[in-house]
Amino acid sequence: MNAVDVFDYAGVALFAATGALAASRKQLDIIGFLFLAAVTGTGGGTVRDLVLGVPVFWVEQPVYIVVCTVTAIFLYFTAHLAESRYRWLLWLDAAGLAAYGVFGAYKGLAVSGSPIIAVVMGMMTGTLGGILRDVLANEPSVLIRREIYVTAALTGAAVFVAAEAAGTGLAVAASLGFAAAFVLRGCAIAFE
Amino acid sequence: MNAVDVFDYAGVALFAATGALAASRKQLDIIGFLFLAAVTGTGGGTVRDLVLGVPVFWVEQPVYIVVCTVTAIFLYFTAHLAESRYRWLLWLDAAGLAAYGVFGAYKGLAVSGSPIIAVVMGMMTGTLGGILRDVLANEPSVLIRREIYVTAALTGAAVFVAAEAAGTGLAVAASLGFAAAFVLRGCAIAFE
Amino acid sequence: MNAVDVFDYAGVALFAATGALAASRKQLDIIGFLFLAAVTGTGGGTVRDLVLGVPVFWVEQPVYIVVCTVTAIFLYFTAHLAESRYRWLLWLDAAGLAAYGVFGAYKGLAVSGSPIIAVVMGMMTGTLGGILRDVLANEPSVLIRREIYVTAALTGAAVFVAAEAAGTGLAVAASLGFAAAFVLRGCAIAFE
Repeated sequence: MNAVDVFDYAGVALFAATGALAASRKQLDIIGFLFLAAVTGTGGGTVRDLVLGVPVFWVEQPVYIVVCTVTAIFLYFTAHLAESRYRWLLWLDAAGLAAYGVFGAYKGLAVSGSPIIAVVMGMMTGTLGGILRDVLANEPSVLIRREIYVTAALTGAAVFVAAEAAGTGLAVAASLGFAAAFVLRGCAIAFE
Repeated sequence: MNAVDVFDYAGVALFAATGALAASRKQLDIIGFLFLAAVTGTGGGTVRDLVLGVPVFWVEQPVYIVVCTVTAIFLYFTAHLAESRYRWLLWLDAAGLAAYGVFGAYKGLAVSGSPIIAVVMGMMTGTLGGILRDVLANEPSVLIRREIYVTAALTGAAVFVAAEAAGTGLAVAASLGFAAAFVLRGCAIAFE
Repeated sequence: MNAVDVFDYAGVALFAATGALAASRKQLDIIGFLFLAAVTGTGGGTVRDLVLGVPVFWVEQPVYIVVCTVTAIFLYFTAHLAESRYRWLLWLDAAGLAAYGVFGAYKGLAVSGSPIIAVVMGMMTGTLGGILRDVLANEPSVLIRREIYVTAALTGAAVFVAAEAAGTGLAVAASLGFAAAFVLRGCAIAFE
């Protein structure tokens, strides 16, 4: 496990949590929680791997499905206790977007060697899970809310790629990318 | 052709029929019938094959496209005769979900060897066609109707995998899985 | 660069332009323009390549991302000058559908050797970008508007495949296919 793998697991769990919160807002049953958690948690990474032409991560390592399942079950029993599920959803989504944007850029760079592809992959991986969640839950897509969303994922991925190229080392580059994306998206949520 | 291939062809034809019925409800032209029948009939299996990293089934064997086309043309001339097209759509969708859920689990098991992946593939294959159909036809996604839907596909896939593991043989395991999913989903439709 | 490659670049740029116009109609920021332009410009071709089992075109050649980016930036500064952005969107979409339908059929034929697969690929490639754009921009899908849309892509792809088989040569077959699709779709827009 290297310095960026933690962003991978964190991204999957955080997005899975937002899927479960969306299921809670729609008052779905536990299988609805599992399904939305799995689609949101793995969706962006699945498309990333397909487009890059590498084996899909959760088929190689079913532990990711277990991560989504545990997250969904935990939230099935606790989500209604939150004061504002939507507030939680937004902040977890911001952290997931930042983590997944960095990891997507990392994997895109590792596979293709192209910084352009790396940034596009980070942008796509960070945002696609949330877009899928909103389409499936019949909510207006995050894209249309005119907030900083895709911008945050794009910035995080670009900062990661630039820092890597500047020789900061993997852990520092990943942390800088995560911070850039999370702060940007967080400001949009806080000052909305 | 082995004992589960019949579930494959049945699943494609049944889902294609639900796509055609959705086209009929929206009063689309014959190409709209063909398009929705093809997307609904092949959508779940396409994603299954992409995620498993095997060649997409209908590119290998274009006969599946012929199955969707014939189904769409047949329904173009007969769908308006049905007393309730929506009722037909629901029951055909239930049978398609059961057939495809079992076949998806079978193929997932054959390719990955992992029971977890097999169950996830069955769930995904059984439900994705219907979700695509609803998104494309601008109807609220089946997911949100709070009925037993994903649950039925998941149960069918799990029963198939468990029966296979218990050594019942392929034909019996597939039949048990189909029956479990269809009865569960059928109850949800009948007692709604 | 052979006689059909021009249809490939044209299709990507034209669809990217419709994505940017949709972003303009929704008053998104420049990143929203980039995102919708990239998804619409590359979406159909991405699914085509995944389904055919060949490397995704824009991962191999990142210049396609540059094409989408330049198109999005140009329209970010000019789209509001158009008298009717929706009118522009419809006509550019018609040209993109015709160009991409032909190129999709060409690539489907080259990879699979099957005329059925070629026609399905043309239909899918020509229409999927627009469908993705509408779903993401929260507009009713083009499919449901009951206009000639999928029909035009299907016709263009079929004319291309038939002309190729008749031995007209690649450039003539591609031009005939493009003309058939564009005229058909154009009539639907003009006489609506």
